[in-house]
Amino acid sequence: MSKFVYFFGKDATDGKSSMKDLLGGKGANLAEMANLGVPVPPGFTITTEVCVLYLKGKKYSEEVLKQVDEAIDKLEALNNKKLGDPDDPLLVSVRSGARVSMPGMMDTVLNLGLTDKSVLGLANKVNDGRFAYDCYRRFIAMFGNVVLGIDFRNFDSLIEDEKKKLGVKSDTDLEEKTLKELAERFKEVIKLEKGFEFPQDPKVQLQMAIDAVFDSWNNPRAITYRKLNEIDDSWGTAVNVQTMVYGNRGNTSGTGVAFTRNPSTGEKKFFGEYLINAQGEDVVAGIRTPDFIDTLGSKIPEAYKQLVYICQKLEAHFKDMQDIEFTIQEGRLYMLQTRTGKRTAAAAVKVATDMVAEGLIDKETAVTRVKAEHIDLLLHPRIDPKAKLEVIAKGLPASPGAAVGKVVFTAEAAEEMAERGEKTILVRTETSPEDIGGMAAAQGVLTVRGGMTSHAAVVGRGMGKPCVVGCGEISIDMKSGLFMVNGHTIKEHEYITIDGSAGSVIIGRVELIDAEINNDLKRLLVWADEIRTLGVRTNADNPADAALARDLGAEGIGLCRTEHMFFGEDRIPAVREMIMAEDEKSRKKALKKLLPMQKKDFLGIFRSMEGLPVTIRLLDPPLHEFLPDKEELDAKLRELEASGDCGKIDEVKKIIRRVVSLKELNPMLGHRGCRLGITYPEIYNMQVRAIMEAACELSAEGMQIVPEIMIPLVGLVKELSLTREEVCKMADTVMAEKAIKIDYHVGTMIELPRAAIIADKIAKEADFFSFGTNDLTQTTFGFSRDDVSKFVPIYQKAGILEHDPFAVLDQEGVGELMKIGIEKGRSVKPDLKMGICGEHGGEPKSIHFAHEIGLNYVSCSPYRVPIARLVAAQSTIESRKAK
Amino acid sequence: MSKFVYFFGKDATDGKSSMKDLLGGKGANLAEMANLGVPVPPGFTITTEVCVLYLKGKKYSEEVLKQVDEAIDKLEALNNKKLGDPDDPLLVSVRSGARVSMPGMMDTVLNLGLTDKSVLGLANKVNDGRFAYDCYRRFIAMFGNVVLGIDFRNFDSLIEDEKKKLGVKSDTDLEEKTLKELAERFKEVIKLEKGFEFPQDPKVQLQMAIDAVFDSWNNPRAITYRKLNEIDDSWGTAVNVQTMVYGNRGNTSGTGVAFTRNPSTGEKKFFGEYLINAQGEDVVAGIRTPDFIDTLGSKIPEAYKQLVYICQKLEAHFKDMQDIEFTIQEGRLYMLQTRTGKRTAAAAVKVATDMVAEGLIDKETAVTRVKAEHIDLLLHPRIDPKAKLEVIAKGLPASPGAAVGKVVFTAEAAEEMAERGEKTILVRTETSPEDIGGMAAAQGVLTVRGGMTSHAAVVGRGMGKPCVVGCGEISIDMKSGLFMVNGHTIKEHEYITIDGSAGSVIIGRVELIDAEINNDLKRLLVWADEIRTLGVRTNADNPADAALARDLGAEGIGLCRTEHMFFGEDRIPAVREMIMAEDEKSRKKALKKLLPMQKKDFLGIFRSMEGLPVTIRLLDPPLHEFLPDKEELDAKLRELEASGDCGKIDEVKKIIRRVVSLKELNPMLGHRGCRLGITYPEIYNMQVRAIMEAACELSAEGMQIVPEIMIPLVGLVKELSLTREEVCKMADTVMAEKAIKIDYHVGTMIELPRAAIIADKIAKEADFFSFGTNDLTQTTFGFSRDDVSKFVPIYQKAGILEHDPFAVLDQEGVGELMKIGIEKGRSVKPDLKMGICGEHGGEPKSIHFAHEIGLNYVSCSPYRVPIARLVAAQSTIESRKAK
Repeated sequence: MSKFVYFFGKDATDGKSSMKDLLGGKGANLAEMANLGVPVPPGFTITTEVCVLYLKGKKYSEEVLKQVDEAIDKLEALNNKKLGDPDDPLLVSVRSGARVSMPGMMDTVLNLGLTDKSVLGLANKVNDGRFAYDCYRRFIAMFGNVVLGIDFRNFDSLIEDEKKKLGVKSDTDLEEKTLKELAERFKEVIKLEKGFEFPQDPKVQLQMAIDAVFDSWNNPRAITYRKLNEIDDSWGTAVNVQTMVYGNRGNTSGTGVAFTRNPSTGEKKFFGEYLINAQGEDVVAGIRTPDFIDTLGSKIPEAYKQLVYICQKLEAHFKDMQDIEFTIQEGRLYMLQTRTGKRTAAAAVKVATDMVAEGLIDKETAVTRVKAEHIDLLLHPRIDPKAKLEVIAKGLPASPGAAVGKVVFTAEAAEEMAERGEKTILVRTETSPEDIGGMAAAQGVLTVRGGMTSHAAVVGRGMGKPCVVGCGEISIDMKSGLFMVNGHTIKEHEYITIDGSAGSVIIGRVELIDAEINNDLKRLLVWADEIRTLGVRTNADNPADAALARDLGAEGIGLCRTEHMFFGEDRIPAVREMIMAEDEKSRKKALKKLLPMQKKDFLGIFRSMEGLPVTIRLLDPPLHEFLPDKEELDAKLRELEASGDCGKIDEVKKIIRRVVSLKELNPMLGHRGCRLGITYPEIYNMQVRAIMEAACELSAEGMQIVPEIMIPLVGLVKELSLTREEVCKMADTVMAEKAIKIDYHVGTMIELPRAAIIADKIAKEADFFSFGTNDLTQTTFGFSRDDVSKFVPIYQKAGILEHDPFAVLDQEGVGELMKIGIEKGRSVKPDLKMGICGEHGGEPKSIHFAHEIGLNYVSCSPYRVPIARLVAAQSTIESRKAK
Repeated sequence: MSKFVYFFGKDATDGKSSMKDLLGGKGANLAEMANLGVPVPPGFTITTEVCVLYLKGKKYSEEVLKQVDEAIDKLEALNNKKLGDPDDPLLVSVRSGARVSMPGMMDTVLNLGLTDKSVLGLANKVNDGRFAYDCYRRFIAMFGNVVLGIDFRNFDSLIEDEKKKLGVKSDTDLEEKTLKELAERFKEVIKLEKGFEFPQDPKVQLQMAIDAVFDSWNNPRAITYRKLNEIDDSWGTAVNVQTMVYGNRGNTSGTGVAFTRNPSTGEKKFFGEYLINAQGEDVVAGIRTPDFIDTLGSKIPEAYKQLVYICQKLEAHFKDMQDIEFTIQEGRLYMLQTRTGKRTAAAAVKVATDMVAEGLIDKETAVTRVKAEHIDLLLHPRIDPKAKLEVIAKGLPASPGAAVGKVVFTAEAAEEMAERGEKTILVRTETSPEDIGGMAAAQGVLTVRGGMTSHAAVVGRGMGKPCVVGCGEISIDMKSGLFMVNGHTIKEHEYITIDGSAGSVIIGRVELIDAEINNDLKRLLVWADEIRTLGVRTNADNPADAALARDLGAEGIGLCRTEHMFFGEDRIPAVREMIMAEDEKSRKKALKKLLPMQKKDFLGIFRSMEGLPVTIRLLDPPLHEFLPDKEELDAKLRELEASGDCGKIDEVKKIIRRVVSLKELNPMLGHRGCRLGITYPEIYNMQVRAIMEAACELSAEGMQIVPEIMIPLVGLVKELSLTREEVCKMADTVMAEKAIKIDYHVGTMIELPRAAIIADKIAKEADFFSFGTNDLTQTTFGFSRDDVSKFVPIYQKAGILEHDPFAVLDQEGVGELMKIGIEKGRSVKPDLKMGICGEHGGEPKSIHFAHEIGLNYVSCSPYRVPIARLVAAQSTIESRKAK
């Protein structure tokens, strides 16, 4: 018989923290706290398994119903109260709790168990009629909204009417009588909207609430959140039914949220916020701005002391920073939740390295505690310290990093502008789960209300999105499309800059600069290096990038694109001369001009990477890319013809003829890569000469230079063997001229499906393989990277594609071809060095895949090198564990 | 101990006809003739194995040399003559002979064994000093040219000088003394050119000649021939050393070439040509126009009778039409060669079907006797009988079929013009092996000299190239670039038409029409149908093509491209309206106009294919293909602006905007195929409605309609599942409307590498697969079909690519992906129907591959259907034999 319901509470706990898949994060940790003797209001968890079954058929088995009933009986017994008891009713909360935390994404019902009768018992028991009816009217409204799906405004408007009528400002000014009347009218709303009475049987209330929580797994914002956070739709949520405790029972009551360390900086200091005489939802919703946790000691000292003690205990137990929720009811502390605390990138690094120093975790664990996104964030731009800033407001530094964008006031606007490629800062009074999409689309978020644990702050940190919250000086005028702050008026679409690390709001576009890597991060990355087996190289086309990447830990260059060098202002005339050449002789003449320039580049790059391998790809793009645009030329010609400048007309006509002759219908599948090298061997000859002359000269200076010459776009064995022969001939010539021997290698890109399919044959001619996953993705999918914007976003919305395959490597298709390529290549040369050098080389999932399929290295842009180092280490750890 | 040398001759023959790989075709058949008791001048064959070994190291093993010496001894004994004997020398020919016949491609040395001394013996023995010295001077020149590589003109010019000096016209007018002097001077040429004396030791002569024949395997024209005929470079040639016989010993001597049946028509009638008092080379070279074979009986009756008898015997023995060479020396007949006779397409079919009727071969053998190229030729255009022809000359009908092209006078010109896509007729005095490339490049060949077995005729038939030879009325003036005939002057690049079946030369471009299939061919194809397991469908987009293909034996439509219907003049306005539509509503309105047109097409196609499956591909190409060209529009806009026609300006601007918005950098990898169907579902909906309405209406008339709806360019499972869902929904709607149930299928193209890789997953959603090998080739290679002309010809010349992969399916790469797709697809649905519908579906090698990898059918253009039927049967036979 399956167990569907797990009880928790003193001496009666069935679950434990390792059962998160079944009990959800909240349920498992409530059980674990109960096991540890931490005071937890008793309750029970209905498993995610029940959710999955329920969502299929919208009903429960007999056994589930039976186990729920038994759990209720047990809860009643433990509390010595009964649901719906007209004298002293048991009241419970019903909350969702998925395997991973989805803050605010699903629904919660509080004060369940109140009825027309039991509300009297509560009033009597706590000797506070106003409190009882306040709970009752809240419960009816929450039930109406969450369980029955009635718009919240139906209830809110009645309260607002009442306040207006009575001339009061706050809900707290409403008296018992009014609240009781409101409860009656709320019930009428339900009757009117749904056609049935608000249920007066607590067991019916409970069953409907449980259904609602399960159903909330599939509400649109939960689905969006899961999509953004890559949470599996099939997991389902658990339901936690827990005895209610009240933080709003006067000045010895309160509720709060805390972290065992500072989630923003990582500093080892108890950190949190609380509100006296308030319920938990008030803190999270950000409606009242709460106090810092350290002041709680002076207000409810005993409970605070106990709280600090419990938090230390929990951190030591879970060996990670905890994010806890607590309620103090009339001086008595209850822990409502503990979970691994979300943290900023900086905090993640600091907590991980500190905990190693504290002996709490080992280096390997530390490496798994920092996410790739964290490093990305740390390496993201921050405000240039030399920039003159006009700071117009200060808020809470909720999520670090700086962002520049145009002001927008709605999530929709942020999303629309992002689709047009525009950068925005989303400015909101407060954010709610409905804003998720807009937050993701914006560069940063600025809110008027809310604390460090408000929705905007939590989600912002999770997304690695710079975020300033609680900036109360701002007043937004949505109608006029502007906000005012301290005498400034900022209109929609004006630029502002926010600094999520300092909490400042700055007028205009501020210059941002790249962040350095601090010592904690350096240490962590050194640990990662000790662990990982996957090499990390960089894609760099100039000495500066090469040096930067080496500083960031690159172990060589995996892709040096020589064509980027061709675009320099000083080179393009010679490049065009080469292309316009009508015969081999004049082409060679033009190439001779390019030779010293290319050589100079290689000298610089080799110097930066002394002792490390440098993979240089020979010219790849089609030649027309270096010529002016046809329409521009046509316009120029018409202009010249109008002015009658005959000399130039012929010249332009000549260029037009060449542009037309080079025009291709599908240049991506055209005359490029080694196809160019084979049809115009003199181009590759010049490049190889430049490479080898540079290598020989530096070698003569005593440097160790490791050139790897890479032939692009090979699909046929003979393309490689012929080109390789030419390359070696030229390399030998140069080495003979310079009387120096260099250990150079000649390899190829595997970037066409055909190359992967015949990799065994290609391997015979190659010293190394480098998977060019950009091109391989284009040809495997038949997607032109430049043209997919017309349908890939639609595909993602329709669920046809999970990720843009140019961002995240497609393991199912492209990855399968890579596996074929690797297997076939190694079948001929077991030690064949293989890497990846597409954009995917810096993308965490793709790096992980590269490790799994046995590549030797990834190559990525310099700023992604640290990410690759970390992810490579995490992949090693993961595959070790999987064994 | 390996046997390297095989003797042949009466009672002393080592080889047999099945040893062609080792002895070459000529050697094996000489041995077989000797075994049959046919009179063959004795000799021996040095194996192809020796050639291969020799070509590697340019030397022979001791064993080879020993066996050659032993063979010479045996030959001397059998002839009772000795090499170099000053009284009665043994003279031999040394000829090449590869596994398959390569006419005129390699070198031959005749009269070997003559020296300054033995020439006297010969003169004495035959009592004809002039004859002996004629042989000697010929031998020295041939040896000088073939063995020593001296330009033939060095010798020819001396003869010409001599003739001028003596005032005679022909070689035959030269006397013994002059010939003897020429022999002396030829030896001087050799001394001068090579620095050594002409060898006077016959054994040295023989060794050098053998070397030369082996070396000739790698001469440029042999390499070209092998490339054109797909003969393996690694086979090598054998060398045949054979006792000389002479057809030029007076009026009871002669030489000839004959076929056991008419190689042009296939008629069962002895067919051939001979020259009295001539050597074999004279017939083949076409220098004297020979007599028809039936007149030989009146000249040398005994030998003729024996020849006819032997030919019948050989045909019965080899069970195929034989091409024989013979020499009659002073009344005595010698057979010099027999081989399978090359024949025209018509002859191939007639001979094959006649031989079945005669009981000589079975149907299966008959099917293997006709080549795909033959059928292609039979289905090629011929001259429209209604056309008014201005026949300006008549020649021999050497290779049937009609051809139209611009006159060129050199092989190079034909090749150059073919590269530019121009059609030519190559007009030559006579052709030689050097002209092979030009003959292949031209549409047809016309020669002034030569007979039905001249080089031009043999090669033309082999290539299936229309050919008129021996058109002696023509006189070519190369210098002025023209030819004159019967009062007409035709300049280079003027159009002519030749009819290779009638032997006529016609002025101008004549209308050609398609050939019918005659009864012999029909019978043969029915036999093929009985044998083959591979289905044959057609690619047809309209009722006429569908009906034609069905006549030609198509078993359904494998690809009906719906977009071709969109281009009709009556449709394009509605198509453009649909594309220009700014919202779904106006797009639907435009589609509504297209619906009845599409439906009408489908009604016609379904009717033509009643009872057979019709695979209809939904819209595939990107929409911009249906809009006007941007440059044209720009020009129009400028024109309108100049004229100030404001109303139209806006309209054109609107179209330009749409064209720009639809513009893609790589449309082949862009917004097309099912990507269109998913983003504009209303287009596919209209198409499916048209298909199903047509199918239902015909079904209501009692016809059996089998629609197969095909979704193009699927790379992701959900592309197919979503589109399929939509298709089925619409199909169900239409069937409900019409109250008729149709058994329709929904399948997909496998035309992207990703589709092949995930074919197991795709198979779950597909009722059938059709491999779109055009697109699959594009993406597997990363070759744009429209752009490859810049490098694929260079690749073919450099040997990087054997075939254009868009013409002949690339088995190594694309084929491997197909195998993966088939295996994965069948792993899920073992009976999944799979076909091929690219251009490759009509190409013999690719059809054979389709059979081998287990496809269910190929689909090709109507005129290739008979070819596919034949090749499919041949593939079945071949794979049966391989088992």
